[in-house]
This record gives sequence, C-alpha cells and structure tokens, in this order.
Amino acid sequence: MRVGVLTGGGDCPGLNAVIRAIVRKGVQEYGYDFTGFRDGWRGPLENATVRLDIPAVRGILPRGGTVLGSSRTNPLKVADGIRRIKQTLAELEVEALITIGGEDTLGVAARLSEEHGVPCVGVPKTIDNDLSATDYTFGFDTAVGIATEAIDRLHTTAESHMRVLVVEVMGRHAGWIALHSGLAGGANVILIPEQRFDVEQVCTWVTSRFRASYAPIVVVAEGAMPKDGDMVLKDQSLDSFGHVRLSGVGEWLAKEIEKRTGNEARTTVLGHVQRGGTPSAFDRWLATRFGLHAIDCVRDRDFGRMVALRGTDIVRVPIADATARLKTVDPALYEEVGVFFG
Amino acid sequence: MRVGVLTGGGDCPGLNAVIRAIVRKGVQEYGYDFTGFRDGWRGPLENATVRLDIPAVRGILPRGGTVLGSSRTNPLKVADGIRRIKQTLAELEVEALITIGGEDTLGVAARLSEEHGVPCVGVPKTIDNDLSATDYTFGFDTAVGIATEAIDRLHTTAESHMRVLVVEVMGRHAGWIALHSGLAGGANVILIPEQRFDVEQVCTWVTSRFRASYAPIVVVAEGAMPKDGDMVLKDQSLDSFGHVRLSGVGEWLAKEIEKRTGNEARTTVLGHVQRGGTPSAFDRWLATRFGLHAIDCVRDRDFGRMVALRGTDIVRVPIADATARLKTVDPALYEEVGVFFG
Amino acid sequence: MRVGVLTGGGDCPGLNAVIRAIVRKGVQEYGYDFTGFRDGWRGPLENATVRLDIPAVRGILPRGGTVLGSSRTNPLKVADGIRRIKQTLAELEVEALITIGGEDTLGVAARLSEEHGVPCVGVPKTIDNDLSATDYTFGFDTAVGIATEAIDRLHTTAESHMRVLVVEVMGRHAGWIALHSGLAGGANVILIPEQRFDVEQVCTWVTSRFRASYAPIVVVAEGAMPKDGDMVLKDQSLDSFGHVRLSGVGEWLAKEIEKRTGNEARTTVLGHVQRGGTPSAFDRWLATRFGLHAIDCVRDRDFGRMVALRGTDIVRVPIADATARLKTVDPALYEEVGVFFG
Amino acid sequence: MRVGVLTGGGDCPGLNAVIRAIVRKGVQEYGYDFTGFRDGWRGPLENATVRLDIPAVRGILPRGGTVLGSSRTNPLKVADGIRRIKQTLAELEVEALITIGGEDTLGVAARLSEEHGVPCVGVPKTIDNDLSATDYTFGFDTAVGIATEAIDRLHTTAESHMRVLVVEVMGRHAGWIALHSGLAGGANVILIPEQRFDVEQVCTWVTSRFRASYAPIVVVAEGAMPKDGDMVLKDQSLDSFGHVRLSGVGEWLAKEIEKRTGNEARTTVLGHVQRGGTPSAFDRWLATRFGLHAIDCVRDRDFGRMVALRGTDIVRVPIADATARLKTVDPALYEEVGVFFG
Repeated sequence: MRVGVLTGGGDCPGLNAVIRAIVRKGVQEYGYDFTGFRDGWRGPLENATVRLDIPAVRGILPRGGTVLGSSRTNPLKVADGIRRIKQTLAELEVEALITIGGEDTLGVAARLSEEHGVPCVGVPKTIDNDLSATDYTFGFDTAVGIATEAIDRLHTTAESHMRVLVVEVMGRHAGWIALHSGLAGGANVILIPEQRFDVEQVCTWVTSRFRASYAPIVVVAEGAMPKDGDMVLKDQSLDSFGHVRLSGVGEWLAKEIEKRTGNEARTTVLGHVQRGGTPSAFDRWLATRFGLHAIDCVRDRDFGRMVALRGTDIVRVPIADATARLKTVDPALYEEVGVFFG
Repeated sequence: MRVGVLTGGGDCPGLNAVIRAIVRKGVQEYGYDFTGFRDGWRGPLENATVRLDIPAVRGILPRGGTVLGSSRTNPLKVADGIRRIKQTLAELEVEALITIGGEDTLGVAARLSEEHGVPCVGVPKTIDNDLSATDYTFGFDTAVGIATEAIDRLHTTAESHMRVLVVEVMGRHAGWIALHSGLAGGANVILIPEQRFDVEQVCTWVTSRFRASYAPIVVVAEGAMPKDGDMVLKDQSLDSFGHVRLSGVGEWLAKEIEKRTGNEARTTVLGHVQRGGTPSAFDRWLATRFGLHAIDCVRDRDFGRMVALRGTDIVRVPIADATARLKTVDPALYEEVGVFFG
Repeated sequence: MRVGVLTGGGDCPGLNAVIRAIVRKGVQEYGYDFTGFRDGWRGPLENATVRLDIPAVRGILPRGGTVLGSSRTNPLKVADGIRRIKQTLAELEVEALITIGGEDTLGVAARLSEEHGVPCVGVPKTIDNDLSATDYTFGFDTAVGIATEAIDRLHTTAESHMRVLVVEVMGRHAGWIALHSGLAGGANVILIPEQRFDVEQVCTWVTSRFRASYAPIVVVAEGAMPKDGDMVLKDQSLDSFGHVRLSGVGEWLAKEIEKRTGNEARTTVLGHVQRGGTPSAFDRWLATRFGLHAIDCVRDRDFGRMVALRGTDIVRVPIADATARLKTVDPALYEEVGVFFG
Repeated sequence: MRVGVLTGGGDCPGLNAVIRAIVRKGVQEYGYDFTGFRDGWRGPLENATVRLDIPAVRGILPRGGTVLGSSRTNPLKVADGIRRIKQTLAELEVEALITIGGEDTLGVAARLSEEHGVPCVGVPKTIDNDLSATDYTFGFDTAVGIATEAIDRLHTTAESHMRVLVVEVMGRHAGWIALHSGLAGGANVILIPEQRFDVEQVCTWVTSRFRASYAPIVVVAEGAMPKDGDMVLKDQSLDSFGHVRLSGVGEWLAKEIEKRTGNEARTTVLGHVQRGGTPSAFDRWLATRFGLHAIDCVRDRDFGRMVALRGTDIVRVPIADATARLKTVDPALYEEVGVFFG
C-alpha cells in the first residue's frame, strides 16, 4: 500500500515528529510505501511530491518546521481542484492520505472524505489549541513555553523601571496561549478574544498593582478586543504601512494605559518566535503518538477519522467533529484564572 | 477560618505555585488565614510554622523548591504522632489542613482524615508521575523536559565518537520519565522498571543501530532491572562507598554492553538536576490549578479528598484512591513506543 | 567607611551580580558599610536609599533587573543637582560612590569626580556593548544569546513558508547585537547603524537566497538606516500613535522587500525581552568580577576610575575614557562577517 | 588549491561552525576545493575522506558534534604514520591541512609542520579552556552555561532538603569550568585541580553555610584532589566495575562531608551533557571567526600557525605555543573568587 502525507497551514513545532512516526511505523510494522506531498494541498493538486522513507525522516524529530513544506492553498477554491487531487492520487497509486493541519486543512479532508470518497485520515495541528474534539494540539505547549519564558524576562524590566509591559501573544479567535502563558508567567492582567475587555478595568488593575509597589505585566491575545472595539480598528487603519500585525491591540492598549493612568507603558509583540524552533518534550510526545495512531487508522482502513487526545489516551473521532466549531476558553475557566488579576 | 498547609517528600518543581494559588485565592476570595507548617509532617508534629500570607507568596511562582521546606518525616512512625498533630492543629486553631505530597504524605493524610477526623485536603505531587487517580502530577513535565534536553545534547557526543551512551533517569518503580524523555529525545532503547529487560536484546538493538551508521542512546530508568537482576544487586553491594545511586543500573548496563558488543559505552546519571529549578509552563499551570481547587475543597468542607487532573478538568477524588496502587506504564503503551527501538 | 552604590539607565542582566560582589567583598574583606541609592541619580539627589548589606544581596546573583531600581535622572540637568548630591553624601557620611551605568550615568560620574571632588568609581553597563575602553560590557552576552535563540526559531518558520523574516534587534547607535546574533543565528543579511544600507543590495541577497531554495533571515539593528533614510523617518512620523518603536526600520524594510522582490516578508521586533531575565554565565562572571574590582578601587582610594575588561583581565581606566566616544563596529569586522551575506 | 580539514579529540560544541566558516570563505572568496578527513588523524592515515563543499556545510552552524567525525588516533604512535599522512596528502593533492583540535591534535600538527614540512594551520579546540596562547577556546562557554544551569537547578533541591550537593564538572588538569560555573552558579565552595584541597576546610565552609540557614553547593572539577589524595585513588580502585568516572572525587567528597559533618550530602556528575548539543552564541561567534582566519592563514601560506583569541581580536601564533604548557587557573584569580566561599 502507498500512503500519501501532507502538512497544511501555519508552521507548528511537532509536524516533523508526526511525519517521522507515521513513516517509521508504516514502513517497519506494515511495510507501506509513502509519498510526501509538497506544500499542503498544493502537492496533490500539482502532483508535487517529496521522497518520504526512513532515511528522509532520520533526525527530524527535534526539528521545527516541516520537511514537506506547507501552504494555505485550498483546493475547494481552485477550479477543478477535487478532480485534480483524485487524479494525482490515482496516478501515484496513493490509497490513503494522511492530512496534518488545522481547521482549513482538516475541513478540506472532511469534505474529500465524506463527499468524494477520498480515503483521508486527519491529524489535528494548531499552535492556538482551538480545535474541538482533542484536549490539546501539538505546538501549543511549545508556544506557551516560549511566551512564558518571555514574560519571565519582562518582569525584571517592568520592575526595574516601574513600567507597564503589554505582551501581545498569538490567538486570533481563542485565548489559550494568552491564558496559559499569562498564568504561568504571573501576569497581572490577561485579555482574550472570547471576552471583550473594559479598558477602565484594565487600568484599575494596573494602578492597584503599582500601589502594591510592583510593575504590572498585561498579556493580551492578538484577537482580544475592547468593548469599544471599533475605535481600535479605526486607529489601525491609520497605520502608515497598512500593516495590522505590529500595530495591533497591544500597541493600542499600551497607549490607552499611558493616557489614562499616566504610567509609562511598553509593548512587546512576540510574533513568529512562538511558532518556530524545536518542539517541547510534551509536543514531541503528543505529535509522535498522533503519528503512530494515524497510521493505525490507515491500517484499519478507518477513514474520515481524526486522531485526538482524551486525557492520556489517543482516540479516533470523525474529522468533521474537529472543525465543526472552534474550541474557545470557557468563561468559568477564565474566571478561575481571574483571581490573579490586579 | 485558619488553614494549614504543608509540603512533604522530595523536591518537585511547582510546589511553590500550589502554595501561592492556595494563599492568593484563600485570602482574596474567602478571607482565610493561613499557617505554613515547616518541613512536611515535622511542622504539625513539632509546632514548627512559617508565616504564610500574600507577601510571603509574592514572586514564588517561577521558583523551584518549596518555601515551606520539606522532609520525609512520617508521623505514623513517631511515638504519639497523631495525637501531637491534632494537638498542634487545635492549639493553632487550624480548621483544615492542605497536604501537598506523594504516596507517603498523602497516605498519612488519608489515615488522618478517615480514621482520626483531621480535616485534610490532598494535592498530588511526584516527579515520577506514578500516582493513580490523576492523569499527570506537576513536576513530571519539568523533569521530562530536562531529561529530553540532556538526551538531545548527548546525541552529538554519541555520533561524534560512535559510542553507546546510556542515560539513567529517575523512576524507581515507574518508567514514566524514561518513557517520555526517551521517546522525545529519540532514544534507541528505553528500559523501564515495569518490564525486566533482556541484555542480549539491548545489545542487538545497539548493534543494529551502529550498522545503520548511527550511535545509540539507551535511556534507562533507575529502577529498571535485567532479567538476571540479582547479579546487579550483588554488584552494587560491592560498591566501595555503599552508595547505590551512582553505580546503578546505568553503569552496570554500559559495562555489559561494552563487554558483549565490543563498542565503547558511557553512562550519564542525570540525578538531582531533574527535580530542581523553575517549573515548566505546563507544571505552573497544573500546580496553580491544583492549588485553586484545593482551597475550594476547603471552602466546601469537602475533606478527605484530593484534587486530580482528568483530561483538562480538575476533579476531586478520595485521597485514598491516589495511594491505593502505583500508576505504572501500561504494557500496551510500552509496546507502542517500542517501534522506535533499535 | 561607608560606600554608596547606584545603578542608572536601562535594565541590564548582571546589575544584581555587580551589587552582590561589591557588598560581599566590601563587608567580608574590608568591613565597609553600604548605602544603596534608589533609582540611579535620583537616590543621592533626593536622599532616597535602600538598605544594602549581606542579607540584602542574598540570592540576587541569577536575578535580572536591579534591587536598587534605576532611572534616567540626570543631576546635571536638575537645578542645584550637584550641590544636593554632595549634601546627601555628606549627611549620610558616604565616602565613596560606586556608579554602575552606561554613557549617561558614567558621564555624570566623570564630571562629579573630576570637577567636583566626589570620589566616584565607575562600572560600565550597557546591553549594547558600545562603551569604549572595555572589551565587553555585561548584559551584552545575554542579549545576544536571547536574540540568537529567537533567530534559530525563526529559521523553521521562514523555511516552512518560504518567506523573508526580518528580525529587528536592539542597537540604536552600534550594531554589536545585530552583528553577533546575526552571525551566530546564521542570518543571511545583517544591517547595522554604522553603515547605511542599500535596499537594492538587500533585495539581491534575499533573492539569491531564495534561488538556492532557502528562505532568508535579515537581522537589522533598530538604528540601521537605508541610504535614502529620510524617507523612513517621514514614514515613521505618520504612525498613528507617534510610537517609533514598533514601526521602525524592520517594518519599513519588510515592506520594501515585499514591494521590490514580490516575496512575502514578515517582521519580528524582539524588544524588551532582550534586556530582561537571568544573566548568562558569562555575564554573571564578568559582572561579578567588575564588582570585586570596583570595591578594590574604593579600598585603594583610586577614584575617577572605571573597571574594564581587557582580554581576560580586569583593569582600571579613567571614567572619562569610556564615555569619550562610542565603540562602534569596525568596518573591517563588518566586512569579515559579510562573507555570509546572501 | 585543495585544502584538507580534520577534527581531532573529544566532542566540542562549535566544531561544525569552524568547518562551515572555512568552507564558506574558502570557496566563495578564494575558490578553493576541500577534502574533509574522517575521524581526526585516522582520515589522512587511512585515506578516509568526506565530501566537503558548500552544500555539505549547509545548516550545520547550530549543530553540536562534527560532521567530519573525530578520534584520538595519534599518527606519531602509528608505525610509519607520518609517511602515510604525507602520501595521502600527495595522492589527494591536498596542499594545506587545517587541523582543529586540542593539545594532542595540535601537538601532532606542530611536529608535522616543523619537522616534516607538512603545511598545517591549527585551530584550538577544548571544552576545558586549558590551551595557552588564546584567551578562550570555543566550546568552553557552552560547557560553562550548561553547568551553571544545572547548578541553578540544584540550589532549590539543596534548600528544600537542607542537604549538601556536590557537583562534579569537567576539568582533569585545569579548573576553568569549575571556576566559571561555580562562580556563576553561586556555589559556596569551588575546588580545582590546580590546588589540592583540605577536606576539613571544605567541611568548615559547609557548616558555616548551614549556620546561615542555607544549604551549600560544592562544585568540584573531576581532576581536583584532596591534600591526602592517595586515599582517593585507593578507594577508587575498590570500585566494583573498575570505572573511575562515576565514582570520582565528587562521590568521595560527598561521603567525607557526610562522615565529618553529619549532614546529608549528594553528588551529581554532569558528565557528557557538558560537551554536547548546540553551541552558545559566543561559541558560534568565536568558532566562526577562528574558521575565517584559519582559511586566511592558508591563503597567506602562513603555515605552522594557529589562530587565537586576544581580547576581541583573532591573532596568529606558532602552533607549538599553544601546546607548550597547559593554561591553568592563576592562584590570584582563584583567590579573587574565594571571597564567595563558605
């Protein structure tokens, strides 16, 4: 049997660990051959492939990125996309396709599997941890670790200068990275996309922290929005380069805090460092186990399924379950963490 | 209400995070007062206390160790121990006791709670992750991370000199650290206490790795034993200092591999570095949530209970459940990982 | 004898190590008493002091920041500043003043020492490594290490998406951090304030890197300027918040590269994380030795002097030597490193 | 021109950085061809070579180990060794040989160069930093960083249990790693091979530390010896496996401290983790510059020379200078650091 593998969407530590586990077990235990598709869905669309065998996966476990390359190409938006994918798979005699990706990549896999009979197995991947049906996605622990280390470092600068430091972390639609790294880093305020924040409340927390003779750290997810959010967007549109990414909510918030409290405030936007580099031990463990179970799905011809973490077990769920709705931060959990604000 | 807190057993990253969370929520939300007991059960036995309030827990979140100190004192083995503990609690008007510890510490808490009416709440703690009733214990992720980083480093030395490197990690009765760090570090052999190993099989793996022109890394839990294990113990008893710890199974195994395969072999015993220093982000998250839920148990007067992780939720279980039996590595999981051996 | 100590200017890993060394040796070997002045020159100006003895410096060696606090207060610009400082020193019976700081702080110390008879000893401090008369300043190695680790991480993101990644690091007037971290991180282009850069040349390097099927990393010091630099400044003045810091040369350059080469480009601004957190082993070594030698200057009543590193020796130089001119990157060194561009 | 390159002796972070710099500059600037010799002097002895060109050095900068392999083969001790080396070089038309190594490897290069007309250039390499004629060798900073991080971690274990922790670090003949990591890690006692230590004095320091309510960390170089050193050796000979390495001075000292002070003591032997893994930013900088200057020596046909660090400059010295005598810790420097003992 020949098995195809592709990785789609943004960079995420652990992708190579998944690929390695799939190939090691597939070759050694089941005698499969593999075809690596290049750059996500572009691979099967354009018949762009990469050699994928035991030597090709040697030494890649600790390396960030993906040896297959990635892209955000969506075959559903490409003329004749599905037919071209089916044709490539037929030509190459690929009998099963393991798709490693986030909401978009898995959404395509679900459609291909359910509506077009393409035998797909899904592996959930997102830095943001916002996929349903799995307790955690790999890459998230690494991102939280990097953000936490940065917050640890910023504490000393905040204290030495008695300044507010606003740290903008990843998370457009879900606040998991902000919540975990903010808690672990001892932040005094954590703002997430799930709940619009009140700038006045933030300023009250900041001021109370200063009164206790400590300098506050505010962790804000890039997708967090103030209650009067339209203003932010208007301000962003004035940015001289038209780039939203470096004049986002963090910058806006620091300016508001300065204006309203009179305290000096600075912003650090962690950006792409959160998604690169070697995966944490936890992510290597999770990614490897996902890979081992994904190839078992193939062996069992259990298609249309995605591997997922439940407690300490790897289980199988319908791919569509993962993409049906975003996994956001539960209000009760946010409130639990709120005891540390201020 | 006055609440006592103690930490027992070995050092473990995250202890301070638990203590901080208990005090922050207890004071801020419930208005409790706290008494810190010094050095585990020695504290209530000898009325040895530490001030424990908001200033006392300031800045301790990222710090390893425990501000309360620890010991392995077992009040059940001390003359009149239980009576003395009850007397101290009565004198200090401590109405609830949060005990943070492993099998031994929690075993005492279970007895005190069930048989002697002492209102205890348990928080599970062990580097080794071998407590039942919880998916993970804090400290484990940090230990695995440190061991994995060490294994990453040892790869280059192994390769440059084409030597076998045996890495002995913690785990007397359970192989969790060996299994996780071995997998994450890309080890070629992982040996755990749960299954006696066959030295000849290990040598076969080592040799096959060399044939592929790579140098093998063997990760061995300190409690792992060969099938002909009595020999090891006899050898250890010959050690000139009577110290088992640095002439353990790792040393023995390296020597056997040298003798049987003719390849040079070296041992690294990671030792105490695995249990010290700042906790990982995951452990800070888990330890903090354990603390928040433990003080909620106190508020609910839900005594005799231990907080535990189930998936992503913190739940409450009878303390005795955690200590009833050791959580060891499931043979199926060990076999799953075995695909990477050799 | 009573000795005053102050730390001025920006946060810098190693400040606490200097303070600890001064106090440990001063108390233990020479029997001195110490007065800590709070927040740089504000301390002696306003008689704001901190207790400074052996217990006060316990455990601070690995901690970032400064237990004395810091500020950019310049007594030469404060009415009656010098007289007030002399008065505070007289009142407190402080007979020697150790000033730990950068160009500004040391400039004041030089003036006070030479023109006003205040017995000062200087310790050079700057993340940027741009002080003359010393081979290195502490804090620099830590900053380079953090920037290098970030660049290591960004490589995988660049490769996975075949994007240009522009990393903006600290260095307003000197390119030391950019040069060292860019070289250590394997950057393909390094731009420093000492030499105006040619955007077309940068685009040529970027394009040639892509042709070799690799994604380029461009490291740029915040103070680097293109040959047509006025344009940058004009653009920056359009920034909607009036903040230069997050829409600096990195942002501008990414935009230009996108426009001119058609390749996607992203910017990461490392910001304050470069100056916080625990100092590297090298910086702890250097800072500690600076402290030990500074207190020896006091004992020798060798005032108006600054401690400095020459090879592996700590030497004494006139304070004024350090501030006379900025230590910038030698064109020959920049050219040496240039072999890795493109 | 064809240039040969070899790496000899123990593993050392930065070897690959040297190789990369040599090849990048040699090919790009001077148009040289390269021959990589495998496993140190074994390569030219047995005509064992490795392809060495730009693609071969791609991506190796951050990787520990050496792509050329290493060995301790000494051609001066091999029958007909020198003639065989000259014959290989002649056959392969290698006109210059860059030898990267420590005392032994460079000693051979010096002899070959001076006595046998083989055109050698040396690059100094040793974790231990004990080569004369250069301020630092690459690999040393990485080793010190790893040891310091370990000592940081051990502090919390020492404090939590009020135990003595003895950390044995590398350094058979020189105490540089012990001195630097011990100082940076805040050790309470540092013992080096250059000065025989007095166990009673060590116990006095340990006891005084406990009296101040802190737990002591003792850093000891593997080559350090007590004044009554013969005893140690006798004890070691009793070791059941005949392995000196894990029952060295650290173990012996912990046992003595326990016996003499009654305090519990534990040993951690850092071992090979100190010499593996990715090099620090400083070591990448130094190794890269050594490589760039070594190839310049070749271009200048300046043979019999070794590159060396003097302050911030790379200079050239006779190879023999580096190996003439060991660079040991100056007694004055050891005394300077001694202010922190006890």
